[in-house]
Amino acid sequence: MGVSVWFFYCLLARSDRLLIKGAKIVNDDQSFCADIYMEDGVIKQIGENLIVPGGVKTIDAHGRMLLPGGIDVHTRFQMPDRGMTAADDFYQGTKAALTGGTTMIIDHVIPEPGVSLMSAFEQWREWADGKSCCDYSLHVDITEWHKGIQEEMETLVKDHGVNSFLVYLAYKDIFQLTDAQVYEVFSVIRDLGAIAQVHAENGDIVAEEQRRILEQGITGPEGHVLSHPEEVEAEAVNRAVTVANQTNCPLYVTKVMSKSAADVIAQARKKGTVVYGEPITASLGTDGSHYWSKNWAKAAAYVTSPPLSPDPATPDYLNSLLSCGDLQVTGSAHCPFNTAQRAVGKDDFTLIPEGVNGTEERMSIIWDKCVVTGKMDENQFVAVTSTNAAKIFNLYPRKGRIAVGSDADLLLWDPDVTKIISAKSHNSTVEYNIFEGLEVRGGPLVVISQGKIVLEEGTLHATEGSGRFVARKPFPDFVYKRIKARSRV
Amino acid sequence: MGVSVWFFYCLLARSDRLLIKGAKIVNDDQSFCADIYMEDGVIKQIGENLIVPGGVKTIDAHGRMLLPGGIDVHTRFQMPDRGMTAADDFYQGTKAALTGGTTMIIDHVIPEPGVSLMSAFEQWREWADGKSCCDYSLHVDITEWHKGIQEEMETLVKDHGVNSFLVYLAYKDIFQLTDAQVYEVFSVIRDLGAIAQVHAENGDIVAEEQRRILEQGITGPEGHVLSHPEEVEAEAVNRAVTVANQTNCPLYVTKVMSKSAADVIAQARKKGTVVYGEPITASLGTDGSHYWSKNWAKAAAYVTSPPLSPDPATPDYLNSLLSCGDLQVTGSAHCPFNTAQRAVGKDDFTLIPEGVNGTEERMSIIWDKCVVTGKMDENQFVAVTSTNAAKIFNLYPRKGRIAVGSDADLLLWDPDVTKIISAKSHNSTVEYNIFEGLEVRGGPLVVISQGKIVLEEGTLHATEGSGRFVARKPFPDFVYKRIKARSRV
Amino acid sequence: MGVSVWFFYCLLARSDRLLIKGAKIVNDDQSFCADIYMEDGVIKQIGENLIVPGGVKTIDAHGRMLLPGGIDVHTRFQMPDRGMTAADDFYQGTKAALTGGTTMIIDHVIPEPGVSLMSAFEQWREWADGKSCCDYSLHVDITEWHKGIQEEMETLVKDHGVNSFLVYLAYKDIFQLTDAQVYEVFSVIRDLGAIAQVHAENGDIVAEEQRRILEQGITGPEGHVLSHPEEVEAEAVNRAVTVANQTNCPLYVTKVMSKSAADVIAQARKKGTVVYGEPITASLGTDGSHYWSKNWAKAAAYVTSPPLSPDPATPDYLNSLLSCGDLQVTGSAHCPFNTAQRAVGKDDFTLIPEGVNGTEERMSIIWDKCVVTGKMDENQFVAVTSTNAAKIFNLYPRKGRIAVGSDADLLLWDPDVTKIISAKSHNSTVEYNIFEGLEVRGGPLVVISQGKIVLEEGTLHATEGSGRFVARKPFPDFVYKRIKARSRV
Amino acid sequence: MGVSVWFFYCLLARSDRLLIKGAKIVNDDQSFCADIYMEDGVIKQIGENLIVPGGVKTIDAHGRMLLPGGIDVHTRFQMPDRGMTAADDFYQGTKAALTGGTTMIIDHVIPEPGVSLMSAFEQWREWADGKSCCDYSLHVDITEWHKGIQEEMETLVKDHGVNSFLVYLAYKDIFQLTDAQVYEVFSVIRDLGAIAQVHAENGDIVAEEQRRILEQGITGPEGHVLSHPEEVEAEAVNRAVTVANQTNCPLYVTKVMSKSAADVIAQARKKGTVVYGEPITASLGTDGSHYWSKNWAKAAAYVTSPPLSPDPATPDYLNSLLSCGDLQVTGSAHCPFNTAQRAVGKDDFTLIPEGVNGTEERMSIIWDKCVVTGKMDENQFVAVTSTNAAKIFNLYPRKGRIAVGSDADLLLWDPDVTKIISAKSHNSTVEYNIFEGLEVRGGPLVVISQGKIVLEEGTLHATEGSGRFVARKPFPDFVYKRIKARSRV
Repeated sequence: MGVSVWFFYCLLARSDRLLIKGAKIVNDDQSFCADIYMEDGVIKQIGENLIVPGGVKTIDAHGRMLLPGGIDVHTRFQMPDRGMTAADDFYQGTKAALTGGTTMIIDHVIPEPGVSLMSAFEQWREWADGKSCCDYSLHVDITEWHKGIQEEMETLVKDHGVNSFLVYLAYKDIFQLTDAQVYEVFSVIRDLGAIAQVHAENGDIVAEEQRRILEQGITGPEGHVLSHPEEVEAEAVNRAVTVANQTNCPLYVTKVMSKSAADVIAQARKKGTVVYGEPITASLGTDGSHYWSKNWAKAAAYVTSPPLSPDPATPDYLNSLLSCGDLQVTGSAHCPFNTAQRAVGKDDFTLIPEGVNGTEERMSIIWDKCVVTGKMDENQFVAVTSTNAAKIFNLYPRKGRIAVGSDADLLLWDPDVTKIISAKSHNSTVEYNIFEGLEVRGGPLVVISQGKIVLEEGTLHATEGSGRFVARKPFPDFVYKRIKARSRV
Repeated sequence: MGVSVWFFYCLLARSDRLLIKGAKIVNDDQSFCADIYMEDGVIKQIGENLIVPGGVKTIDAHGRMLLPGGIDVHTRFQMPDRGMTAADDFYQGTKAALTGGTTMIIDHVIPEPGVSLMSAFEQWREWADGKSCCDYSLHVDITEWHKGIQEEMETLVKDHGVNSFLVYLAYKDIFQLTDAQVYEVFSVIRDLGAIAQVHAENGDIVAEEQRRILEQGITGPEGHVLSHPEEVEAEAVNRAVTVANQTNCPLYVTKVMSKSAADVIAQARKKGTVVYGEPITASLGTDGSHYWSKNWAKAAAYVTSPPLSPDPATPDYLNSLLSCGDLQVTGSAHCPFNTAQRAVGKDDFTLIPEGVNGTEERMSIIWDKCVVTGKMDENQFVAVTSTNAAKIFNLYPRKGRIAVGSDADLLLWDPDVTKIISAKSHNSTVEYNIFEGLEVRGGPLVVISQGKIVLEEGTLHATEGSGRFVARKPFPDFVYKRIKARSRV
Repeated sequence: MGVSVWFFYCLLARSDRLLIKGAKIVNDDQSFCADIYMEDGVIKQIGENLIVPGGVKTIDAHGRMLLPGGIDVHTRFQMPDRGMTAADDFYQGTKAALTGGTTMIIDHVIPEPGVSLMSAFEQWREWADGKSCCDYSLHVDITEWHKGIQEEMETLVKDHGVNSFLVYLAYKDIFQLTDAQVYEVFSVIRDLGAIAQVHAENGDIVAEEQRRILEQGITGPEGHVLSHPEEVEAEAVNRAVTVANQTNCPLYVTKVMSKSAADVIAQARKKGTVVYGEPITASLGTDGSHYWSKNWAKAAAYVTSPPLSPDPATPDYLNSLLSCGDLQVTGSAHCPFNTAQRAVGKDDFTLIPEGVNGTEERMSIIWDKCVVTGKMDENQFVAVTSTNAAKIFNLYPRKGRIAVGSDADLLLWDPDVTKIISAKSHNSTVEYNIFEGLEVRGGPLVVISQGKIVLEEGTLHATEGSGRFVARKPFPDFVYKRIKARSRV
Repeated sequence: MGVSVWFFYCLLARSDRLLIKGAKIVNDDQSFCADIYMEDGVIKQIGENLIVPGGVKTIDAHGRMLLPGGIDVHTRFQMPDRGMTAADDFYQGTKAALTGGTTMIIDHVIPEPGVSLMSAFEQWREWADGKSCCDYSLHVDITEWHKGIQEEMETLVKDHGVNSFLVYLAYKDIFQLTDAQVYEVFSVIRDLGAIAQVHAENGDIVAEEQRRILEQGITGPEGHVLSHPEEVEAEAVNRAVTVANQTNCPLYVTKVMSKSAADVIAQARKKGTVVYGEPITASLGTDGSHYWSKNWAKAAAYVTSPPLSPDPATPDYLNSLLSCGDLQVTGSAHCPFNTAQRAVGKDDFTLIPEGVNGTEERMSIIWDKCVVTGKMDENQFVAVTSTNAAKIFNLYPRKGRIAVGSDADLLLWDPDVTKIISAKSHNSTVEYNIFEGLEVRGGPLVVISQGKIVLEEGTLHATEGSGRFVARKPFPDFVYKRIKARSRV
């Protein structure tokens, strides 16, 4: 039950060489005990009784689990939104991520309509290169549709390491595309060998419901969830699946927030659709009852789209589907705003900037809800927090696996440590943590990023700007082998 | 087992008085033996050993089933389509209906965009009043959306006996409405106390697929089904259900053609949606394998939207759902075109005028597929061919039930007669019958419409223009009691 | 909105003649306003402006709903259990039933193994004839299996008006039959034209779990629900359905207590099985959280098998399935024991005599949970509380319908009256009411049994022993038409 | 597209050293190109440009896929059955297996009731050790239940390398256990850390149906499938799942033959049950229409329990579920009898010895049905034919993975080679192949077992008795981590 670990630092140790002795290495397929040696940020050797000549920093990890670092597939650090910027920038955001055991994030570039994809992409690169403390990559959101966008997508895929694009079925008159446009975008994505991501809500219905709810005099955060009913999410997921099947394009549903949306994904997979579902920390760890909180600022902190489900059985259900393989990947959609920012929507919930926290809490919440309860084992945990993301987005086995040649992004994981989540202690800059008071079991003891210890004994040694952009190639095998076979049929 | 029936005609019989002795009266709730007396087109008495003074035409029906006449909820007689007119007009169409045991039809008024609902409605009234041989009523299709339409809908409901309107999710750039428009239409319909009908296919996807299929060089009728894949139907049904739930508007899905579309309806009902599903003769009686027929004219005869499913297990599945109550009503969507008309689409399947036959075959096919097989009993048969339609569209108990005060639209039904369906013997004017060669058991021996015998001993005595327009009031109890309770919640 | 009703009593009124003016008559297919006249316990006339010569007691019911009296398909009044007798006998039980709007009950004869069916049946007849205040009928439970039982079943069906028999898949070493025996019993039942009822729980597993739970030192009422997990119920329902399908025997599942059991029935119906599900007042109105009550006596009052589900979403789910037709009939399984009797199981939950109250509360709880919420309308309410039961058990249309010739078992129903259920005011003799504190809307104003007013202005005028045994014929049309068609296929 | 491979044999090559150059190594998680070197039957090195000093037999496999050898989890070679012995013994059976790309089999020890588990186990060891041409392991079937059996199970697990036991829910009065016995067996299995396998059919119903079918005069092979209806399989699977959940015992369903049985497993997994499903070559590759073949001998060749489904859509459905992960493992249940043996049941289908062929065809049929169609990719193919089996039965990573330290059981796989399956060319000794005439794409070019080439250029070099018994330890991580976590909860 003890939390401490003994470090034996060799006097001569160079910072880029590290030896971990005796850990139980946990990959998605199995766990086994071995020593592991890394140098220059890469795993060089795995074996029993490794001896590294010349002196090396050594961690005695006997009896400890060593996991691939987490990959948070969905962040929106310092995201611009109607003149504001999300509270956590790439520095604060990646610090939070590392603290929770996440050593890579994939952020969303969201170009203002009218702005070119390339210039937006370069803006995000600039922001992230300067601030990110861990490796990162970028999804690009398609917020309008014309011929020029198609050409930019091609450039991004071929020359800039992007293999995933997100379309919006919601945000009417802002980002929303029609079904015909989605069909065309998916066709382009498939030809490029990328992944089609979708924000799945029916924006037409949401807009009508928002108007109706406001007309009823409901202006508070509860109006947000009332105007985004669960079936509006499920409907859009179903529609996206339909277009994906017709275009033979791989689909990835971001932010799976409800039982029925998850069910649509599970059913589609059963019928053979190449589709992946991403529940997020929020939907796995809490529910939408808080929208009715008397405390406006607290209630507003839960505003995100699709919203958290008011059905309290939702988190358990999503954790079960994540465990049985019907859902595959987890992100945080980390994009909180502080109370002063949220207050813009004090009298009109449609104006509240959207986004919740979750990048720091993701790994521990999943461990607590899934592994402690026996829904999944440690290997499946690695799969859903790291490996599957790496496979889908073509980062595998550089990321997502502990193997010779892989990046030295690693966690010493303590399955027994318990922690009470609180805004008082979190790394985010916002006043409210949507998991406030939740006690979770399981967390990282030591976090290694690029072969360097960045967290130990509760202290973070993150270096601003040290994170590298990781380019991703198109046609990931894990996704496209089946797509290609089908296009032949 | 004998097929013949003995008629004893009293010399003094007036044509508007009729006594049927000893029949087994079949309603949707039970069967019982009684005499039944009708006068002036209305059932006047039901009882044992009825004695009618003054002499009356009498049918000895001992051992025979007497059913309420069928209601075909969906016809499109003499429908205009891109300069052509569907082959069967109201005269030919209602003759076919009566021959098959259907004594009332509800046809669809389909205004050209730009034409007012009222003038279209009046055009249809004029056509039908002059030609229909049985009672009829009219649905009105909403083919565009603006403020004027809303006002006309109100007039139609309040002054013209219309309580059902159909919207199209397909036929892009022609009839198709956006989700936001559908939301508004449904809101109007609910306020008027009418039924929202929906043609459910995703028109955006269909248009893209048609383009793609044509580009592949596929121009024949098989292109029709390839460009209207099953899930495009199910998707649209699901979307319509979603909008109906948000607007608390009763929904009626016309032409349920596939397993997955039917499943969506069944699921929605389970969750409490007020929704009804209408499989048609075609989807209950045959499948879409014929689209690949070498005989172009034959293949073209199956073209309708949504198309018949290529999955040969579909009819059995739909008959099962109709039997267990997951689907409730049956129509024919009778709207065939002859081969010369179809030939417009010889080189481009998208130009083939759409519509199949089925008004004549409906009752026999359902009896054969459902009652003979033990899926449903005779009472459920009455429910799905007549009573449920009458309840939903507020015709009950005038139509759909054998009771004192109800219209004398009746069938003496022979459960054992067998018939092989063929274009050689059907009443439609077209060259192909999509059920060609199908042997069915069960059919009408005698058909009584408005209290008059119109079919006996295989001979039809239909009178052109004798059919009356039946006005339907809004807020049918069967549909709206729940809607009202929900609006209170 | 007022609750009171005005009675105008004609001075000359004979007690067996009654006229109700202007009520809204509610049958399962429709509602309509009419006067209704009854005499000698039978409905003689229904019509507008009825005039009855000679003076008659008249109730002015304008604006009131008049419903067929409820049928409680499952009671176990004064049931013997291991030397004890259930607290409410036929007098107290039927008084409670009438108070709640139930005018007919069907009780279960449960012969001790070794006792002949006939002598048990006659014992129950004797008990009920002497005490029942409303009409009643009897199911007979099959508690062992040998050739003699088969012969007695035949006698009961042919000569004694029994058309339903229940088998037990639980109560190992007491009543439980093997699958092979169930197969044989079902085959006999089908040949006799009766209905196979089943108590569905896997008795083998329950016995093992009871042993295991007791070994863990759990002895209180929570042990009851822990040892009867939900899936043990669903498993047995599924098994019973399987045997019913193989033997082509109609099946009726008593006491549907859980979501998953209900789902099995719904699925089976979809595939064509002739199966009916009976949720009870308890499963529709409360849940199993009370088994963990600190108050032993209260917790013990909920002990019944299958147990109430600990999942608080269960009642809403079952009410939804009852509303959409997936479940069809409702009973109470009323069989409470008082605290002194329950105390036998103070140190061992397996010894607590089983059974809950519910015959008085059934109608109001269903109205409140289903009609007020808009899940069903008043006509469906009549179906699930009365008509469907009458059809299945071949009492229709004598019972279950307001029609000329039917029994004058009627309710004037007030949809708006509210009541808080409490042991302080209930008719049962036991100390605890499992719905204690539940506020329900809807209840009977006037109850008419056999044409006599037995409840008015809150006062019950029940006459001990006035209830008649109602014989039921085999081969009910509603059930057997399909069975016969299938045996022909 | 060419099929040939070039072998360069070094003159000095020793037979136990082998180098494969440039193959695309296919594991369940990814594919990558590398050289691989093996010695003494074990993989020693994997890497680029491997140079092995001293001369070594080398295969140039550039552009070829190299897969882990298949594991057939279910064989019944030379199985005794009522005085007969299955036609293929361990020699013929493993030759067939190797020819198809299977390098390890797990056979079932089936003790006659009354015979001790240990003596049966030793008998099988003796048979297999003398004849098996590839590595093998043994499941032990529990054919009766008493205290002695429990003790023997413990011995087998602790001292003899057995970690899986099968119980029968069918074969009434022969092998069938009651639910209570199954509960006890599962409890023992869980305590021992083994896997509970189940033959899932309701033996009570089967026995009744067999009697009924024979009474109807049906004696041919079609009687077999008529008396084993699909839902009898699904029912038993559901029951086994229920017991497994109660006992927290991992479950493994052998021979998944029908859609509904597979659905039960999929549903259970979704709810968190630790359960695995094993479709077999037969259920994945053909259907039960052949039971009605005019050719008795051919029809009889398909007799196995549960039977092949007459629904022709079944194979596609099972292949889909195998692809999406709802089913996990594949075997063959290879146990054919020759026509002379089958003829015992000429006049009574219940006497036909049961078992089909499939060990030789398994890999190619799955490749053809799943990979060629785009249902799964090559990595999932490895998972379902080898890796998952190795993980479940605790053989991983010695078997089921290409990794340093793993056994050198390998296949050079040609995805394009086509073959028409026929009894004329198969390795089995029986006259009929149930896949006769089926053309499949995909098959092994070279098969390596224990580091030795046993198949090349279409020629098999199998050595009788060279197969080793592979002991399996209890508490496989893959299975038991979750079980243990649950027992803690």
